[in-house]
Amino acid sequence: MTYNPLSLEYAQSLDASDALADFRSAFAAPDARLIYLDGNSLGRLPLATQTRLEQAIRTEWGERLIRSWNEGWLEAPRRIAAKLAGIIGAPPEEVILADATSINLFKLAVAALRANPGRTTILTDEFNFPSDHYILQGVIDLLGGQHRLKVLRSPDGIHLPAEHVIAAIDGDTALVTFSHVAFKSAYLHELAAINAAAQAAGALTLWDLSHSAGAVPVDLQGSGADMAIGCTYKYLNGGPGAPAYLFVRQELQSRLRSPVWGWFGDAAPFEFELAYRPAEDMRRFQVGTPPVLSLLAIEPGIDLLAQAGMPAIRTKSIALTKYLIELADARLAESGFSIATPRNPARRGSHVALRHAEGYRINRALIEPLDPHEITVIPDFRAPDVIRLGIAPLYTGFVDVWQAVERLVRLTTAGEYTRFEKNRLAVT
Amino acid sequence: MTYNPLSLEYAQSLDASDALADFRSAFAAPDARLIYLDGNSLGRLPLATQTRLEQAIRTEWGERLIRSWNEGWLEAPRRIAAKLAGIIGAPPEEVILADATSINLFKLAVAALRANPGRTTILTDEFNFPSDHYILQGVIDLLGGQHRLKVLRSPDGIHLPAEHVIAAIDGDTALVTFSHVAFKSAYLHELAAINAAAQAAGALTLWDLSHSAGAVPVDLQGSGADMAIGCTYKYLNGGPGAPAYLFVRQELQSRLRSPVWGWFGDAAPFEFELAYRPAEDMRRFQVGTPPVLSLLAIEPGIDLLAQAGMPAIRTKSIALTKYLIELADARLAESGFSIATPRNPARRGSHVALRHAEGYRINRALIEPLDPHEITVIPDFRAPDVIRLGIAPLYTGFVDVWQAVERLVRLTTAGEYTRFEKNRLAVT
Repeated sequence: MTYNPLSLEYAQSLDASDALADFRSAFAAPDARLIYLDGNSLGRLPLATQTRLEQAIRTEWGERLIRSWNEGWLEAPRRIAAKLAGIIGAPPEEVILADATSINLFKLAVAALRANPGRTTILTDEFNFPSDHYILQGVIDLLGGQHRLKVLRSPDGIHLPAEHVIAAIDGDTALVTFSHVAFKSAYLHELAAINAAAQAAGALTLWDLSHSAGAVPVDLQGSGADMAIGCTYKYLNGGPGAPAYLFVRQELQSRLRSPVWGWFGDAAPFEFELAYRPAEDMRRFQVGTPPVLSLLAIEPGIDLLAQAGMPAIRTKSIALTKYLIELADARLAESGFSIATPRNPARRGSHVALRHAEGYRINRALIEPLDPHEITVIPDFRAPDVIRLGIAPLYTGFVDVWQAVERLVRLTTAGEYTRFEKNRLAVT
Repeated sequence: MTYNPLSLEYAQSLDASDALADFRSAFAAPDARLIYLDGNSLGRLPLATQTRLEQAIRTEWGERLIRSWNEGWLEAPRRIAAKLAGIIGAPPEEVILADATSINLFKLAVAALRANPGRTTILTDEFNFPSDHYILQGVIDLLGGQHRLKVLRSPDGIHLPAEHVIAAIDGDTALVTFSHVAFKSAYLHELAAINAAAQAAGALTLWDLSHSAGAVPVDLQGSGADMAIGCTYKYLNGGPGAPAYLFVRQELQSRLRSPVWGWFGDAAPFEFELAYRPAEDMRRFQVGTPPVLSLLAIEPGIDLLAQAGMPAIRTKSIALTKYLIELADARLAESGFSIATPRNPARRGSHVALRHAEGYRINRALIEPLDPHEITVIPDFRAPDVIRLGIAPLYTGFVDVWQAVERLVRLTTAGEYTRFEKNRLAVT
């Protein structure tokens, strides 16, 4: 049967033939009238995580108490990291869970710059997270100001071709660090080409995978990456502010020394010696006691991703973002929306950025519909004018996308957003 | 009625007249045959925390999703810190929850040393946590090696009188930093006297309250402390690895700049500007997204402490540790135990250290009784020979202490510990 490609029936037919459709029921989704397109900011709650946390709270903390450290908590950062390693193309012994993404960037950036003396340039781009920019600025200040941050600009606000990056790497480049997927435009950097160029020039690479891990296959080892960091609460569905991770290529581990000499990074923390000796392996990048509840919450989400497999996830992600772009072209262009995401799927992450002069107010109207019978759509807004529609392939369906686009049509046609005050800032 | 002071009946009579007895039922305690004396390492689970976390998981994460950031999560580090401030004698605007204790020590130590240039000595003692020693060693390495760590030794392994500390502070002292309560001997430093001496000499003070907050009244403001840090999972009952806190005296906040320029420490994080500007207030010491589940778990435990009041908690803590010391003198001395904790309650925190040549094996036998009808006692062991019996006044009773001592008598008399191998190391 052939459907009009703009019809609900067509969206339903795509959902019906979706190989990953069953994963949707693995997540808490109590509100059927909520279209959640913000998994790129905070992933949904896996039902298995709810069960896991009940056990962690009632049994492990409540009953076993301190004994739980020896019964699993101590090993959790490595055990869960070994599973995560499979998602990001790394050997298990090159990944560990620890701290927050920014802390991990701080530790590795300081370590890398101290391990690569004589070079002064840190290369990044305007697409990188502001949080990463801040950390790098602080590191430069801390190390005495002899380094400088070179910030590449995009020629069109959407793409940043690898040849621009490669041309900017030279013999003075100490560190090359980007967000693998740009958080605003969803531009996907060419990992292997950039790693090769950096390596040839003697620079170290450090990738922020926060916006790609769990949605885009990452081949850290195969692409020759030196270091990576990332959060676990977006496409990995680890829960709000769940601990972050870091990756360091095996041969590099002994050369990099974290500036934060943490107890959990000591070679023998339970000897309680007063002199620090860094562990030989990835544990050297741990600092203090990890927040166990938030840490344990990460595991079930990673298990789900592993079960689905990153190739299938990527296939569905591309199908959904392509479908969303086609619908937006057909239904939203006349309302003043433009696509601010690469149209080439090979260069696209797993969200679609729609630009609109009234983006801020439209985003608010999506989240807070006036009509109680209207659906609620939750994307997020990034100043000045971008609405991000995040696609989490394990729980986002084609009908979700169709409904979100139709909601945008209704909302903008009726001018429903005008009841909100203009405001250039918003959290969501 | 008068009882033999070594009898169970006497212990029962003390519990019967305990003004804080009702708080015991506010904590999960599923196993009546478990005597938990390790609240100085991991506090028990408050029942209200169990309920709070269910709401956080199911409703806030599961249903409200990203909206929860605006509905309470963003403000949680400051809201909970304001309550904690009341426990540690600080104004609410001088405390914030963030990161792990070691990260907070790192941030403040670097900031303090950079704010106090020209001075090269960091003063600490052998009683301070190894983790704090490690961080300070790393900070010295990071800042180029011009600083040195001066480590005060105790004359008797138990005390470190304030006059020794004060005599060691001079015009070269940049930073004075101790654990307020020594984690091994429970020695309680004289906050006000040391702060006054440091201030007179132009040195900054930084206290680690991990082993005192929630068990010992702390008057940060009244004692003239400059900075403090601490964990929330010991006497504060915040849960395993729950986020830590930091305190900075108001007048000092603008002078101290964290070396970790974090997104959550920016003056306007949601403007997503690429240039960092530190927030004017305590938020400048935040870094990244906090682990929300572990963060929210802190609040109910602090509410319980506030409800009981620190003076009543201190009164009961002293009564319990005094009782424990008296029982140990009467019942355990002949088995080779000695008291390694100050006998003067004014200089004692809320645990009692028992020293025994077979401490490691005795500790194991307490935790893993051979006889299934025997009670389980959980203290912890600190190398080479110390068993720490932690008193958490909200849920530890006099009968608990009596039972633990009698268990030690039975165990050592029978030589029950000899079935364990000698080992100098252990986690618990």
